[in-house]
Amino acid sequence: MKKNAVYAQSGGVTAVINASAAGVIDACRQNSAQIGTLYAGENGIVGILNEELIDTSLEPQSVIDGLRYTPSGAFGSCRYKLKSLEQNRREYERLIEVFKAYDIGYFFYNGGNDSADTCLKVSQIAAELGYPIKAIHIPKTIDNDLVVTDNCPGFGSVAKYIATSTREAGYDVESMRKTSTKVFILEVMGRNAGWIAAASGVASESVEQPPHIILFPEVVFDEDCFIQKVKQVVDSYGYCVIVVSEGIKDRYGMALSASQHTVDDFGHQLLGGVAPVIAGIIKKRLGYKYHWAVADYLQRSARHIAASVDVEQAYALGFRGVEMALAGANAVMPYIKRVSQNPYRWEIGQVELHKVANHEKFMPRDFISEDGFHITDQCREYIIPLITGEDYPPYKNGLPAYVRVNKQHLPKKLAEFVL
Amino acid sequence: MKKNAVYAQSGGVTAVINASAAGVIDACRQNSAQIGTLYAGENGIVGILNEELIDTSLEPQSVIDGLRYTPSGAFGSCRYKLKSLEQNRREYERLIEVFKAYDIGYFFYNGGNDSADTCLKVSQIAAELGYPIKAIHIPKTIDNDLVVTDNCPGFGSVAKYIATSTREAGYDVESMRKTSTKVFILEVMGRNAGWIAAASGVASESVEQPPHIILFPEVVFDEDCFIQKVKQVVDSYGYCVIVVSEGIKDRYGMALSASQHTVDDFGHQLLGGVAPVIAGIIKKRLGYKYHWAVADYLQRSARHIAASVDVEQAYALGFRGVEMALAGANAVMPYIKRVSQNPYRWEIGQVELHKVANHEKFMPRDFISEDGFHITDQCREYIIPLITGEDYPPYKNGLPAYVRVNKQHLPKKLAEFVL
Repeated sequence: MKKNAVYAQSGGVTAVINASAAGVIDACRQNSAQIGTLYAGENGIVGILNEELIDTSLEPQSVIDGLRYTPSGAFGSCRYKLKSLEQNRREYERLIEVFKAYDIGYFFYNGGNDSADTCLKVSQIAAELGYPIKAIHIPKTIDNDLVVTDNCPGFGSVAKYIATSTREAGYDVESMRKTSTKVFILEVMGRNAGWIAAASGVASESVEQPPHIILFPEVVFDEDCFIQKVKQVVDSYGYCVIVVSEGIKDRYGMALSASQHTVDDFGHQLLGGVAPVIAGIIKKRLGYKYHWAVADYLQRSARHIAASVDVEQAYALGFRGVEMALAGANAVMPYIKRVSQNPYRWEIGQVELHKVANHEKFMPRDFISEDGFHITDQCREYIIPLITGEDYPPYKNGLPAYVRVNKQHLPKKLAEFVL
Repeated sequence: MKKNAVYAQSGGVTAVINASAAGVIDACRQNSAQIGTLYAGENGIVGILNEELIDTSLEPQSVIDGLRYTPSGAFGSCRYKLKSLEQNRREYERLIEVFKAYDIGYFFYNGGNDSADTCLKVSQIAAELGYPIKAIHIPKTIDNDLVVTDNCPGFGSVAKYIATSTREAGYDVESMRKTSTKVFILEVMGRNAGWIAAASGVASESVEQPPHIILFPEVVFDEDCFIQKVKQVVDSYGYCVIVVSEGIKDRYGMALSASQHTVDDFGHQLLGGVAPVIAGIIKKRLGYKYHWAVADYLQRSARHIAASVDVEQAYALGFRGVEMALAGANAVMPYIKRVSQNPYRWEIGQVELHKVANHEKFMPRDFISEDGFHITDQCREYIIPLITGEDYPPYKNGLPAYVRVNKQHLPKKLAEFVL
């Protein structure tokens, strides 16, 4: 009794989430004796609710191979959080209705924290309704904030991009410091977790090398202390490179970013724009000439400088997620175990989703230096293996030759569903 | 009678100015029968005035080879414009004093528009004072705004970075458009010239692909017209990617950027921060969810994605500049001639400095689409050869392994000079 499968991408996309998609698709194709057709929800779970399904079997293998080196969510992703079972049972029931209509036996959901929670709930409601499904969560997030797993696919590549960019801009500012810019500020993503900001720290191989100051969301921003540190760095080295996480907060827990008044559909604060705030403080208190950059989406889509280990892991997690489902697992997530540090070796484990969903992993205290402005050697040892190796995309006319899927839609069978 | 030489870097640095330095150094080393020691001014012309000279002969060849793949100004650059001969004759006389003290017969000045002017003046005052010197300007600027030369070293690499980043972020936003960001704005450099903004245009291979809108400094910003275009793009494709040049101006010639009140030492306006201004206009007029990025120094230091043709040209211009001096040329600049378009072939010409200094090359009207929001096919044909080819640096621990010069200083011989 061969069942079909459905795959969906969720939340903010990464440079390597499509490598996970390729892993899922390849594994389904290689196990066609047990799995029928693999459908993809267009724009994530919203596409499943709306019965907007793409037949992945109609995508040529060359396109699937291209997903391995194409950033973004090829089938479309979404920021749409299903409410709790109590609050909106009809959405979960609709999912089961769609699953039934397409004879879906496998649900592969590729996302972060919120998606792990959704995936778990889907497995619960299916059990409650007596509908047999294997719901597998394939992890993905640049924020690196999922628990249990040693690291999250997407993080290694954004880390490589941010560390490289910090080093490059650091060289730039160093060469201009005599008569021009004294302070350079780079704002990075990461929400409430400082992992991406921390990644910039590996660019510095000694105390005089940039970045000189990293501002973590895990460390309360103390303006006086910060200003003192900036002054000391400029006095010592003639310039100062600062990497600031979008999520830094003052001692009242208030985000420093300018757009703190907006929230997204997950109820998360929309962050961004903290670099000019920091620049303004420096200008006012110290008067140094400054420049600032906000990497924003450039960092999470920078497939041109993806870490090869990140690409490999993202693909492997997708592939193994399918194998776990075939082995009978349900409400689980494949995750990365660090087996050895030197040389770095990893393998894939399997964890129950309730141990992952709705938890967040922050920077441990011993990864942050005593003064709160840099990373420790322990943190460097953690990050370096994750950014190692280059996995360049092919180029055409000077630009990365990324692929697009054809997105062949299935005709709808069900009544319209109003979100 | 072997003379020594001095080399200095000037103005904003690029991903490949050090390749020009390597070209100058290699050419001097290979012509040691005619050229004695090559010194470098630390932090550009300021280092020559202050007699802060680095003996490049003490740099190992491996470091010089490394300059070819190291961004920034390895010897330090500066933003310091010499005043006119009438206004500050003593600075020019000081240069000649330093040249005499070190028996300098060759002056290689690596910079943009302002440096071309300085280099010309140095040759003039030397002639006036009867001091024999060959003053050669080696072109460099990401802004691509020097006249005569087909393109400027540094531009191809920043163009490749911006076009790649636009494509990558475009894929990202496209995949999120259903439930999240509708408008993404990327701010790029370029001062009063739209070349860098134009480079993003090659990322789009058809009308529905990003970038959908490019805002050039050469085109007056008309808010109503812009808002209408944004709405039309979002209505058609579900999202809109905008690339905005830092230098865009309204119909009164006022820069839209937030920091329009500041000027640098050249008297140029310090630009930056126009992306949030554009975002604010869109939010107010259309209410779309937006994100914005400011690439700032990341774009001009992104050696990890340099264009190989740019690296080759930068090196060749440095090398040929030395050969021109040896052949007796003075007050000239080596420049790039496009000999053939398909296949792209280039060679190096020689132009008198007075034909280059203090001119600016803007985007020609026929490179900008009729509605003013995109590039034409002519512009694509101009840009694509300049971004072609990848020239990756070596990596260590996941990061580009850039070099630093040792900067062995010469002991000072002269009285201190007060700038």
